[in-house]
Amino acid sequence: MPVNLETPNLENIFDIPGVVLKHTMAGIRKIDRKDLLLIELAENTSVAGVFTKNLFCAAPVQVAKEHLSNANLLGIRALIINTGNANAATGETGLAHAKLTCQALAEALNIKATQVLPFSTGVILEPLPIDRLLTGITKVTQNTEKSTWLDAAQAIMTTDTLPKLHSLSYQNSHGETIYITGISKGAGMIRPNMATMLGFICTNANIAQADLQDLIQEVANQSFNNITIDGDTSTNDSFIIAATNQSSLLNINNINNDNINDSDSNSDYALFKNKLIEIAKILAQKIVRDGEGATKFITIEIENAPSQTIARQVAYSIAHSPLVKTAFYASDPNLGRILAAIGYSGAAIDVQKIQMWINDAYVVKDGARHVSYLEEDGQAAMKNAEITIKIDLNQGAERLQIWTCDFSHEYVSINADYRS
Amino acid sequence: MPVNLETPNLENIFDIPGVVLKHTMAGIRKIDRKDLLLIELAENTSVAGVFTKNLFCAAPVQVAKEHLSNANLLGIRALIINTGNANAATGETGLAHAKLTCQALAEALNIKATQVLPFSTGVILEPLPIDRLLTGITKVTQNTEKSTWLDAAQAIMTTDTLPKLHSLSYQNSHGETIYITGISKGAGMIRPNMATMLGFICTNANIAQADLQDLIQEVANQSFNNITIDGDTSTNDSFIIAATNQSSLLNINNINNDNINDSDSNSDYALFKNKLIEIAKILAQKIVRDGEGATKFITIEIENAPSQTIARQVAYSIAHSPLVKTAFYASDPNLGRILAAIGYSGAAIDVQKIQMWINDAYVVKDGARHVSYLEEDGQAAMKNAEITIKIDLNQGAERLQIWTCDFSHEYVSINADYRS
Repeated sequence: MPVNLETPNLENIFDIPGVVLKHTMAGIRKIDRKDLLLIELAENTSVAGVFTKNLFCAAPVQVAKEHLSNANLLGIRALIINTGNANAATGETGLAHAKLTCQALAEALNIKATQVLPFSTGVILEPLPIDRLLTGITKVTQNTEKSTWLDAAQAIMTTDTLPKLHSLSYQNSHGETIYITGISKGAGMIRPNMATMLGFICTNANIAQADLQDLIQEVANQSFNNITIDGDTSTNDSFIIAATNQSSLLNINNINNDNINDSDSNSDYALFKNKLIEIAKILAQKIVRDGEGATKFITIEIENAPSQTIARQVAYSIAHSPLVKTAFYASDPNLGRILAAIGYSGAAIDVQKIQMWINDAYVVKDGARHVSYLEEDGQAAMKNAEITIKIDLNQGAERLQIWTCDFSHEYVSINADYRS
Repeated sequence: MPVNLETPNLENIFDIPGVVLKHTMAGIRKIDRKDLLLIELAENTSVAGVFTKNLFCAAPVQVAKEHLSNANLLGIRALIINTGNANAATGETGLAHAKLTCQALAEALNIKATQVLPFSTGVILEPLPIDRLLTGITKVTQNTEKSTWLDAAQAIMTTDTLPKLHSLSYQNSHGETIYITGISKGAGMIRPNMATMLGFICTNANIAQADLQDLIQEVANQSFNNITIDGDTSTNDSFIIAATNQSSLLNINNINNDNINDSDSNSDYALFKNKLIEIAKILAQKIVRDGEGATKFITIEIENAPSQTIARQVAYSIAHSPLVKTAFYASDPNLGRILAAIGYSGAAIDVQKIQMWINDAYVVKDGARHVSYLEEDGQAAMKNAEITIKIDLNQGAERLQIWTCDFSHEYVSINADYRS
């Protein structure tokens, strides 16, 4: 039951000059299901990526990272994404399969294997059905029909209940229209497994490969890195931005990163960055809104933290607490559970300085229950589908916002279903 | 539905010379419920404790720690434990209430307030109903009837479905019988809140206060510190050992701690330590067996780790993963989830060296699926009520064993119930 998640009308989704989408049904795990997506990129496209930090990094992620690190020599021309199998913890065979995938696609498109980035999502520890994938690659490359971004969003879905896509456009200082369109997928598989997070954003903006790589980390830190369903980091998480460069070059040479902020809208680079963060944030939040079994969308705001590290420790300790998440599911203002999660977060803080609000209800003052807090106010706040937990640590100047969802019977049902 | 948890017959539970138990119904949160336990200790009893590391350490824990730190001056003579309210995140008022509790009990028993250790378990962030507690203290101290250890175990229960107690005895080298009896409580409250863990062990062994304090940390590290239900560390967790010293003094002066091991049974100290670890382990495991909604008792064994820190990172990452826990609930051998949890544990390890077994099923060899592993073997293993996940990291010599349970619909139900 997704929380305030709608599928946008296709007329609000912009095509990206220099990007061609194709999909097919490869039957990786299920027949009659869109499970293979090809994103073809024009020559001279800049591509940047950030990937899972899980040490059991899946074979396709290993290959994608390697190919991306050499992309300054020969640009990336295609992304290929399969669902139904993660090709993770599959050893040398899995690695060979991921390379074979790139090789097969490269031959069909008349490019080099190193110009392909492969992505997989699905069950871990099971061999990739490479024959079906190779047949699928033949099918998808021979497909003369282009796919829409909606097809693309559907083709990367697993247990997602709705496709996730978003688009925006703006005019740059040269009077050109810049389009940015992205898709994402989140929590789970049709037969559940890891909540693999995938995000792909394409744009006709013009930015050098190296600059885009610097930028994507900053974008991820304000979007995809700030969401959590259940704290389980997938072996396959990947977030990619492709800029086809079919517009005027963004001038970032004389920009000191420290000076770029939301108000610096005179700079084309700052504008692009803000728009990228906007779309990445929306795509990331869509994953949470469709989190496995989610009934509430929860924003956790940390204010006045001594450091970003401490802000993250506190925010994620709350977001990952099963006791906090079940209380939100029940609209039970059992808010001491939040304080307990802060207390065991490992963050070295003075808890006596903490203030806490649930939406407008002022619950905690100086580390203890606010004398005028009424439980009915807390409960009223928790009955909303969108809830903000604001924690003012009152011992620094750093802020952080992350997004999560509640923990329901449905989460257990989805993840306790047998896979096959 | 507790996993293989039985209430022992009272004839197998030994009274401890120098310990008197009394309980009453104080009506802290519910009437008609044993919710106040008094443990009176003879003069010259040594008492040691370990407490929650949660920064929102409850008021009674703060007071207990302070009183214990001065126990070398004037020994501890009484433990007083209430359920129904945690007296946590209650600020200065909560602290005053905890002190008042000690003062009232001290007056009734004609001892000093600093000779009392107070304990509370229950809802956080709600004011302690101090009047009812003080009335309860009057009642319990005027009670002429002594309680059994079963009464005691029942009086500290919250959402525990069964009382938890265990007892053992042995002969020391002087031919004296040493008795050790303990109680514990775990996961949840009758109206759920924190899974506060409490453990109290009493014995007539004779050991100096300071030596007992050194020993309790070692005992905790092999018992109560190695269990987890949901990763939520309570504000009130406490584990206490009281030795009434009514037997010959344990000679620990010429013992080098490094030389004490299971085989060193000639030493009375080593024997005592091993028996303490045995009973503490059983009491700790009982908490897991009765974990909220538990249907499986899971032992996680880490072998050949580079350090205890890394062993803990790996073990707890597995034990806290909702995806792993729901898979065990479903008996679904979706074992890639365990590898993913190892991979994101933060432990700096070479995952290519990892071997994994589920009971007898050899699942992972050198970081990837074992070629001869059959899913039906994994599934057969997971259908047991008692399951061991053995991870051989194969990169060091440290070992660790921890215990946890699965994650069921019932867990969500228990914790999503409204409190009142």
